[in-house]
Amino acid sequence: MSYRIAVIPGDGIGNEVMPEGLRVLEAVGAAHGLSFTPCHYDWSCETFKATGRMMPQDGLERLRDHDAIFLGAVGFPGVPDHISLWNLLIPIRRTFDQYANVRPVRLLAGVPCPLAGKAPGDIDFWIIRENSEGEYSQMGGRFAEGTEREFVLQEAVFTRTGIDRILRYAFEFGKQLGRLHVTSATKSNGIYHSMPYWDERFAAMAAEYPDFRTDEYHIDILSARFVMSPERFDVVVGSNLFGDILSDLGPGVTGTIAVAPSANINPERIYPSMFEPVHGSAPDIAGQNIANPVGQIWSAAMMLDHLGHPEAGQAVLHAIEKVLSRTDGPKTPDLGGRASTAELGEAIAAEV
Amino acid sequence: MSYRIAVIPGDGIGNEVMPEGLRVLEAVGAAHGLSFTPCHYDWSCETFKATGRMMPQDGLERLRDHDAIFLGAVGFPGVPDHISLWNLLIPIRRTFDQYANVRPVRLLAGVPCPLAGKAPGDIDFWIIRENSEGEYSQMGGRFAEGTEREFVLQEAVFTRTGIDRILRYAFEFGKQLGRLHVTSATKSNGIYHSMPYWDERFAAMAAEYPDFRTDEYHIDILSARFVMSPERFDVVVGSNLFGDILSDLGPGVTGTIAVAPSANINPERIYPSMFEPVHGSAPDIAGQNIANPVGQIWSAAMMLDHLGHPEAGQAVLHAIEKVLSRTDGPKTPDLGGRASTAELGEAIAAEV
Ligand SMILES: CC(C)[C@H](C(=O)O)[C@@H](O)C(=O)O
Ligand SMILES: CC(C)[C@H](C(=O)O)[C@@H](O)C(=O)O
Repeated sequence: MSYRIAVIPGDGIGNEVMPEGLRVLEAVGAAHGLSFTPCHYDWSCETFKATGRMMPQDGLERLRDHDAIFLGAVGFPGVPDHISLWNLLIPIRRTFDQYANVRPVRLLAGVPCPLAGKAPGDIDFWIIRENSEGEYSQMGGRFAEGTEREFVLQEAVFTRTGIDRILRYAFEFGKQLGRLHVTSATKSNGIYHSMPYWDERFAAMAAEYPDFRTDEYHIDILSARFVMSPERFDVVVGSNLFGDILSDLGPGVTGTIAVAPSANINPERIYPSMFEPVHGSAPDIAGQNIANPVGQIWSAAMMLDHLGHPEAGQAVLHAIEKVLSRTDGPKTPDLGGRASTAELGEAIAAEV
Repeated sequence: MSYRIAVIPGDGIGNEVMPEGLRVLEAVGAAHGLSFTPCHYDWSCETFKATGRMMPQDGLERLRDHDAIFLGAVGFPGVPDHISLWNLLIPIRRTFDQYANVRPVRLLAGVPCPLAGKAPGDIDFWIIRENSEGEYSQMGGRFAEGTEREFVLQEAVFTRTGIDRILRYAFEFGKQLGRLHVTSATKSNGIYHSMPYWDERFAAMAAEYPDFRTDEYHIDILSARFVMSPERFDVVVGSNLFGDILSDLGPGVTGTIAVAPSANINPERIYPSMFEPVHGSAPDIAGQNIANPVGQIWSAAMMLDHLGHPEAGQAVLHAIEKVLSRTDGPKTPDLGGRASTAELGEAIAAEV
């Protein structure tokens, strides 16, 4: 089996962790009889500075023709974040209807956990984030710019179609895992229109899955519970913003967001799905070859799952866990070691 | 000195923790020559069920004439949260222009911390939450109700006046504390109009405070950092929603939101300010007399500060810390003990 992968390293440490993701992909391919043809796109804030665009006019067209998109990180000082993201990452998610952003929260062996008394396995759940609408919206604008009366309206958009499909995805995901428990993130006590509507749709969807246990928490207390009792979760579903927050907080609770992967899934498989680490471009450590490549490598594992090769995905995940749990194994500085990005990547590739 | 305090226990455990707040207030008043005339208002979801209103038509008028408002918790199953809150708590905050919501995050002796290796004093910072606009808005609505095309628009409103006054409050607060460091919570990479505007105003305000160290984090990574490195914060300023999330997460990181207080401040002192615990009405444990009253009692301490009696406020806080740090002292179940709400309240009052 051979796959065409669009590779977008992007900015900052994206350029350092991507080679390791590809290295491991290559290695696992060799072991499992899969081959990958990476097609590199250097779209980034550099491109923006040179050309005034984050990607060429036909960028999305070019991506469409791949089996998957493998992305590093986007955004760098010098280009405002809302410009860089809304001209690269977010259009890919939306144009390709990657409405399900799937993010595991799992305490790995070898990753120091900030919580007291937790062992690997104690924290293990999934965040299903709505990825195509909600609070991330270009609707709105500024009134009376530059005056004292100036104000900004920011609209969030929640459609029945958009909410229902992500809720259904979350329940189906739980069913596949054999974990019949879905938690909804809401804030219907404060956010007047959208969140009560979200709750309404959640109740309707829950009624279609009577064997599931369901619960809902306002995002404020839910965040606190991620810290106080992370064991209680199985599948957590949230809006674009709430899912975003929870999927950094969850990895924070399990030690580092550097290892966290994510999958931007188009469940209907009409368009390519995209796989990227949760972390950003980390300008503060970029260029030093000390970034942790595990988020990128674990994202490759999720890509393998999606392409229909869960054994290969498992092999990558096991290799990650095995290398990280070696007491004398290579660790990047964020994990308390001194290994370089490449050293950790090489060790995982060798283990695969 | 004598003060007229409007007392609104509200719903659920609000009714159980409020008497303890008043008990301690009474005790500290006796010790410091202050007297309080509480005026009780039984406005709550019960009232709503009986009368169709959360408070009487002239409710806000009645409150205006007090030196401060002391509130328990609002919201209970049977009345949708957005109804109960938007007809009691939120109108009070807005009508009385209590635009600064001040919430300490502090690891207290005697409160078990979920983070490994932290001692009291290690975590000690303040959240300044915008409390009058932003994401909490009744602007917006539903289109094509009941059809497949249904969608909801939810508008957030960010005014220059509203942003600037909370940012200034945060810097002035830091100055008063002698901690010249303000962190801004943003999400300008995803939320297109409002958050870039927030950042712009933050940069402008920071320029007026050149001796301050400032930083800004997107809310997702900021949440993770609350867990991974809570020591680094001094004053954190955020929008209504972000401040809400962070001020539950912070107390979660320090062990329990049950002890966390908050002050809804009208800095111009044109209207009464309001003091309430961060926790909600906790229907799951209401009626059992096991709720932790410390959030309510600590809120009384913040009220004393605001009324110009910081020694009395300090006395309450010391009493709380002293009682909680006694190994054989009374502890409510959430702190791992078996004391009742009243037992813990009595012990703190005695200590005062
Ligand atoms: C009850 C709710 C509306 C309220 C809020 O979100 O403001 C509460 O969570 C708080 O933090 O005071
Ligand atoms: C870079 C940013 C726009 C993005 C998001 O918020 O979606 C990132 O934080 C993520 O979680 O993928």
